[in-house]
Amino acid sequence: MNHILNLTDIERVGREKLPDNAREYYIGGAADEITLHANSSAFHQIFLRPRILTDVSVRTLATTLLEQPCAMPIGIAPTAMQRLAHPEGELATARAAQNLAVPMICSTTATVAIEDVVKQSNANVWFQVYVYKDREATRQLVQRAAEAGCTALVLTADTPYLGKREREARSGFHLPPGMDLPNYRGLNTSATNVPQSKAKSGLAQSGLAQHFINNIDSSLTWSDVEWLIAQTSLPVVVKGVMRPDDAIMAWKHGAKGILVSNHGGRQLDTAMPSIDAVLPIAEAVGEVLDVMLDGGVRRGTDVLKALAFGAKAVFLGRPILYGLAWDGEQGVKRVLEILRDEFDLAMALCGCRNVHEITRDVIAM
Amino acid sequence: MNHILNLTDIERVGREKLPDNAREYYIGGAADEITLHANSSAFHQIFLRPRILTDVSVRTLATTLLEQPCAMPIGIAPTAMQRLAHPEGELATARAAQNLAVPMICSTTATVAIEDVVKQSNANVWFQVYVYKDREATRQLVQRAAEAGCTALVLTADTPYLGKREREARSGFHLPPGMDLPNYRGLNTSATNVPQSKAKSGLAQSGLAQHFINNIDSSLTWSDVEWLIAQTSLPVVVKGVMRPDDAIMAWKHGAKGILVSNHGGRQLDTAMPSIDAVLPIAEAVGEVLDVMLDGGVRRGTDVLKALAFGAKAVFLGRPILYGLAWDGEQGVKRVLEILRDEFDLAMALCGCRNVHEITRDVIAM
Amino acid sequence: MNHILNLTDIERVGREKLPDNAREYYIGGAADEITLHANSSAFHQIFLRPRILTDVSVRTLATTLLEQPCAMPIGIAPTAMQRLAHPEGELATARAAQNLAVPMICSTTATVAIEDVVKQSNANVWFQVYVYKDREATRQLVQRAAEAGCTALVLTADTPYLGKREREARSGFHLPPGMDLPNYRGLNTSATNVPQSKAKSGLAQSGLAQHFINNIDSSLTWSDVEWLIAQTSLPVVVKGVMRPDDAIMAWKHGAKGILVSNHGGRQLDTAMPSIDAVLPIAEAVGEVLDVMLDGGVRRGTDVLKALAFGAKAVFLGRPILYGLAWDGEQGVKRVLEILRDEFDLAMALCGCRNVHEITRDVIAM
Amino acid sequence: MNHILNLTDIERVGREKLPDNAREYYIGGAADEITLHANSSAFHQIFLRPRILTDVSVRTLATTLLEQPCAMPIGIAPTAMQRLAHPEGELATARAAQNLAVPMICSTTATVAIEDVVKQSNANVWFQVYVYKDREATRQLVQRAAEAGCTALVLTADTPYLGKREREARSGFHLPPGMDLPNYRGLNTSATNVPQSKAKSGLAQSGLAQHFINNIDSSLTWSDVEWLIAQTSLPVVVKGVMRPDDAIMAWKHGAKGILVSNHGGRQLDTAMPSIDAVLPIAEAVGEVLDVMLDGGVRRGTDVLKALAFGAKAVFLGRPILYGLAWDGEQGVKRVLEILRDEFDLAMALCGCRNVHEITRDVIAM
Repeated sequence: MNHILNLTDIERVGREKLPDNAREYYIGGAADEITLHANSSAFHQIFLRPRILTDVSVRTLATTLLEQPCAMPIGIAPTAMQRLAHPEGELATARAAQNLAVPMICSTTATVAIEDVVKQSNANVWFQVYVYKDREATRQLVQRAAEAGCTALVLTADTPYLGKREREARSGFHLPPGMDLPNYRGLNTSATNVPQSKAKSGLAQSGLAQHFINNIDSSLTWSDVEWLIAQTSLPVVVKGVMRPDDAIMAWKHGAKGILVSNHGGRQLDTAMPSIDAVLPIAEAVGEVLDVMLDGGVRRGTDVLKALAFGAKAVFLGRPILYGLAWDGEQGVKRVLEILRDEFDLAMALCGCRNVHEITRDVIAM
Repeated sequence: MNHILNLTDIERVGREKLPDNAREYYIGGAADEITLHANSSAFHQIFLRPRILTDVSVRTLATTLLEQPCAMPIGIAPTAMQRLAHPEGELATARAAQNLAVPMICSTTATVAIEDVVKQSNANVWFQVYVYKDREATRQLVQRAAEAGCTALVLTADTPYLGKREREARSGFHLPPGMDLPNYRGLNTSATNVPQSKAKSGLAQSGLAQHFINNIDSSLTWSDVEWLIAQTSLPVVVKGVMRPDDAIMAWKHGAKGILVSNHGGRQLDTAMPSIDAVLPIAEAVGEVLDVMLDGGVRRGTDVLKALAFGAKAVFLGRPILYGLAWDGEQGVKRVLEILRDEFDLAMALCGCRNVHEITRDVIAM
Repeated sequence: MNHILNLTDIERVGREKLPDNAREYYIGGAADEITLHANSSAFHQIFLRPRILTDVSVRTLATTLLEQPCAMPIGIAPTAMQRLAHPEGELATARAAQNLAVPMICSTTATVAIEDVVKQSNANVWFQVYVYKDREATRQLVQRAAEAGCTALVLTADTPYLGKREREARSGFHLPPGMDLPNYRGLNTSATNVPQSKAKSGLAQSGLAQHFINNIDSSLTWSDVEWLIAQTSLPVVVKGVMRPDDAIMAWKHGAKGILVSNHGGRQLDTAMPSIDAVLPIAEAVGEVLDVMLDGGVRRGTDVLKALAFGAKAVFLGRPILYGLAWDGEQGVKRVLEILRDEFDLAMALCGCRNVHEITRDVIAM
Repeated sequence: MNHILNLTDIERVGREKLPDNAREYYIGGAADEITLHANSSAFHQIFLRPRILTDVSVRTLATTLLEQPCAMPIGIAPTAMQRLAHPEGELATARAAQNLAVPMICSTTATVAIEDVVKQSNANVWFQVYVYKDREATRQLVQRAAEAGCTALVLTADTPYLGKREREARSGFHLPPGMDLPNYRGLNTSATNVPQSKAKSGLAQSGLAQHFINNIDSSLTWSDVEWLIAQTSLPVVVKGVMRPDDAIMAWKHGAKGILVSNHGGRQLDTAMPSIDAVLPIAEAVGEVLDVMLDGGVRRGTDVLKALAFGAKAVFLGRPILYGLAWDGEQGVKRVLEILRDEFDLAMALCGCRNVHEITRDVIAM
């Protein structure tokens, strides 16, 4: 364990522990995986111009997201079916989030029921939702999330259809026996027809893809965002915003935050890297909305760069899964601790004592 | 077949099936093949900025080209001697085009007579022509194409001489025994002196090159385009336009469309990639001419990018040959279906319901 | 030895001679080592536009730094614990510096006492200092340096904390038995608690890192620079300046020079390359301060480029260590001679007879 | 021979035939060989925007250089000691030049006397000169060249000292037994002390380097160009101009042409690629001087690009040596024929009928 120094180390050991089926599902992106790789490499091409001699002996990473206190500007992005990575699944992740005092966005397609995730972890959990064709099922899910104690809703808005994930198709991805998606249980709707463990089929589309084709509502518009907001007293974050005009729409229709995201490169291949999208968006709505980002964050300097471009926080997807696969709750905790320490150091070395001092002029343009 | 998910997969299996002679002929470009590779890689360097929440549940890919209805903005570019790839040659290609309701541009140097291609496929066939030194032969060919039921003429204008195709020279390309170019049959002209299957010669220039040197008229000017237009009631498309001023000339001299093309990198090496040429051309003539493009299209997002830059449709060359080599009519059909589905998905994920909604602001500049 | 033609050759032979422990310590940078590599590669991307026919038969490389004469605009950057590289350590380096009449910046964490370095070499030695939490210890060190005959102080300002040096952590870096840091001897302070040779531990942080955590004052501000300047009559250089505004601060608070430096890529990874930082800094303060640079200099043309962008001199870090490891004093001398000769030739081939004639227009923009 | 289609093929076979000693001498550049490689790769990064339908059936490549007719805008750059490559040396090269009706620049350090080169080839020979410290020797050489029938002088102006050619130093380059530099014979001067074949020495500098150090005048200025021009009625070309201001100086001091050149990357490493230097120079003096270029030309499209940027002709260095090594006079002839045919085709495919029609708008900017 003394050779586990960074998120790349954890990716290596985590990938080794994942079963083939899950690994192909997690690591892949859409089509040629150009966006998947560009998400990370775009960070490498941004250089910093550090400031010195500002007294950085006392620092705080604390921030607020959706007016909720947050120990640092780093959260956990929603990823599906975490029991594929570790028997404790979302629960382990939530406990680590609680430990580090950061928000976890729990997926609707979790393998642990949202009530269990919240109650058994005591974490600050946001609930990721789709709007299904069946609005009543959607409403029930939202209500369950609120009753379970979730503190925000995150609407995935970039998935009218699933992206073309060729790795998934080649590996014939499926849920293993004994694993299900409990958030769908008891819903009075056809949306619960989730594919169970089958033998690998010869179909080019995985069972998950079929589930989406059947249930996700691709006719969604900004009025549906308003509808969703009307169903709940929780703040709503729109996930998948990549354009300033869409960010303004989110604000106009009542969202409290947006998550700049290309879905980890899993939806539209050659969508621009998240970090390259964030600046004009933050310039457009940064004063009225919480702008967050996911995609490609692997180092503390990446967090700092995102904040310098105007994001209020970043969210981690795959690194969390690798930590989870590696060592369950402890692994996720380690991921968060490493990134926290790196970000803290990056702040210090850039002369920043808190997140407000991370301004755009630390970026070398 | 369940591992055939994209055009790269089909390229791999198709190339394996091609005889050496044909493979070297098809895959090669001119000189150092810089343009050949740049055609594709230029697409990879263009990033998209998708729009969300626009109700993409109902979409149509339909468009018109030369005022003809077209199921999608994708057609088949002219490629020579398709029986090299599959015994059914151009006929298989045409039947797939008919099946998908897209236009096929049939080459003059086809290995199936144009009359057979049209009648036995019922496809929408455009006929690719050169203007030969012998104008009477040219006129006869054009007349045959019209009588056969072709609906447009595509004048190849970038080939006063053949490009320097070194692979062809090294492999000593030749037509195999029993294969000929039936569109030349019965022409009352020396242009029919096409080289037949010979043993590999030590010549640096292939037989095809010699044919061109003998017959193609390198003195062509825009008046000859007018002459060609006067011979026919069919709309004429000029293929090989790479400059806005030439695009304007095409319009002034009566063309109905242009095909932005560097001949798949087979003519002038280091000619710019097609996708990089299209924007200023579309700005110049997009409102008065149908601007089409070929070169490097391999993914649905490539189609979308071409349309975002102002093209009305894209045409596929080598991918069709690989599909044909792989599985004849079914292989070509699969190529078109895959690209159709990818383009449809790309539209949906960019928030576009039809081709008119694909505007330049989806490109991340 | 006749195959040792350039600094890359010396790096190769020097690295072979280094013990593992020292090699990993010396060659490494922070995190992904992006800045480490960019420091050099940035030079490769700058092209020159040489001038001809200016009579370059008589040239001088001489310059002044801090109003001290200097045989050439090349000095020796501070690097720690040089006895790791060669038994004579800093003394060998200083003798080579004396021989070539260039300044050597001697590190506080040297393995030879500063008094010995100065007296036994007769070199022009500048003393690198940190400001420790214990100001009295700091004051004593500064006083010792002045009394020893040092002619300038170089304040390292980019290290409120050590960078994340993963190679060091992986190799468990430690001082070998029998080696200590004599500049700390006799100081009436806890800052002398330097870690001694231990067996490799399982800790992710090396002993050196622990030393810093314990003693370096991360609350430093520009007032502390003023405090330091008040303790001494020696000119003070601030090392680690990467921004024009910080350069102006250095001038306002009484520094006589600045060293543009990212600490050889060992502090903040993805900090911009030094050579890319120097131009705006030289434009801001080049007329009132001596602007110097370290990071990535390996060729005479690199020296010339730095001067063309406004630096007054460059300093060498790792190349000196490789020369020292290779052949002690002679090795360091050879490094300096090679770079001197290359720089002299670069000047001649650019039509420059002295450092003042190296103007920005030799850079191809 | 039917696989010898381009200059890269000839480089391969020519390099195989060269003795080690000569190969290292010819192929090398200065220092890290960055300019050497950039000379070629810069051409690859320039894309063309071809024009169509201009009637290119009748073309001419003919041009004039220094008011002398020239079959094509391609000449032979001066390279030293060609008998290293082939027993007939400069004489074979000159005969090929004569055959193709292009100018050959013959080096002062030729291994065949200038009188023999001119008389036995009947070629249009320009004589490359240095200005030696011994002006009388220089004058005698110039006079001999004129009397021998040379039609221009080419003053190498970028070599006050030899570049740092490390390959040469490593291989211990020397003239083989029985080979000398006959142009120095009979000169009443110490400049004739040319090093003869010695065993490989341990010196870092080759014998040739020593010769230069002893004899070349590094104090040369533009007045010396005037002096040279006054010694002769031949037109003088200044070789090694990389800047518009130097080009203007050349014109003001009486030169008739300039050769934009970085000496094939053998002098100042990281000097900009020749093709990137030519445009501003041609804009400055293109109407009053013949602007020529050498460096990196390997394809007909490279010739066309150089002309589009304003050069009047390009000169070939290493490719000639490879052709010479491969097959003597026939090999050089083949190099010139291949490049001629490629350039002719590039012109045709860009819609240009003669060199005047190659305008800057064929470059895709």
